Amino acid sequence: MDLKNLIRDVPDFPREGITFRDITPLLLDPKAVDQAVEEMARFAESRGVEIVVAAEARGFILGGALARRLGAGFVPARKPGRLPAKTVSVEYELEYGLDELQLHADAFESGTKVLVHDDLIATGGTAEAVVKIVEGLGGDVVGCGFLIELAGLNGRDRLAPHEVHSLISYD
Amino acid sequence: MDLKNLIRDVPDFPREGITFRDITPLLLDPKAVDQAVEEMARFAESRGVEIVVAAEARGFILGGALARRLGAGFVPARKPGRLPAKTVSVEYELEYGLDELQLHADAFESGTKVLVHDDLIATGGTAEAVVKIVEGLGGDVVGCGFLIELAGLNGRDRLAPHEVHSLISYD
Repeated sequence: MDLKNLIRDVPDFPREGITFRDITPLLLDPKAVDQAVEEMARFAESRGVEIVVAAEARGFILGGALARRLGAGFVPARKPGRLPAKTVSVEYELEYGLDELQLHADAFESGTKVLVHDDLIATGGTAEAVVKIVEGLGGDVVGCGFLIELAGLNGRDRLAPHEVHSLISYD
Repeated sequence: MDLKNLIRDVPDFPREGITFRDITPLLLDPKAVDQAVEEMARFAESRGVEIVVAAEARGFILGGALARRLGAGFVPARKPGRLPAKTVSVEYELEYGLDELQLHADAFESGTKVLVHDDLIATGGTAEAVVKIVEGLGGDVVGCGFLIELAGLNGRDRLAPHEVHSLISYD
């Protein structure tokens, strides 16, 4: 099936002029989720992924399902103050101001093959932050996988030379 | 395996005197995740679950994997301002002040059999809020499933008469 048919366009969210790509209709359709997870898993398997690192919060939904499908570990990348043990942080720029993501400092062994996952890549700022934290911990980022890519924002270039895989693309 | 062995106790988090039950070591172990999801799925199947409604953000990780395992739809319950289409809200009390959760108003059809999921039940305030929103939309809450139950806080009583299932219990 064409997964794009299950993405709902919501105009003017989160603010005027932005069209939000809403994945909730897709999440309601088990066959669509299965197709999406299988396609993401094929990419991950081709890259030898050992763990999936996903960004809070929407990245957890398919990221958790994908990790289980792969028989891979799952590591959450979270906003500050959410992870209870010792963390490492990376700040990254948003359109206005800075945001920050954290991983547990003992999240994985150095050399582990990591897939960075989120539901959507726009400018690539969030994924780039996750890549930086993972690499700072000695992880080997073997690929970045997304359900949706807003190709016109060129986030893919920002993640180069890492391989980027997405299932649904918008100009 | 005893899943409790993969829960890390972090003292004095998020504040002094509280022991945080950290699920991240369990999420790193694919066999443990598989066992947890299978046990949750057996409960959900016995209740005829059609969709899983999970609370942001940790509830999305195993909730997403569980929905896929069941061939069920997944619906996220989110903090205000995160869901793009028309929402319904419920406020609920925290120890200090109020919090709020939202579902999309068109998240499911009236009469749908719903499992309410989160990673952990403490006082039950969050899960109770999710139950209220689901029922307000005409959903049939056929059970509430958690990885961890802090049994001493009696959250289970607050969700009565709904059936509560958990895999790991602390006094």
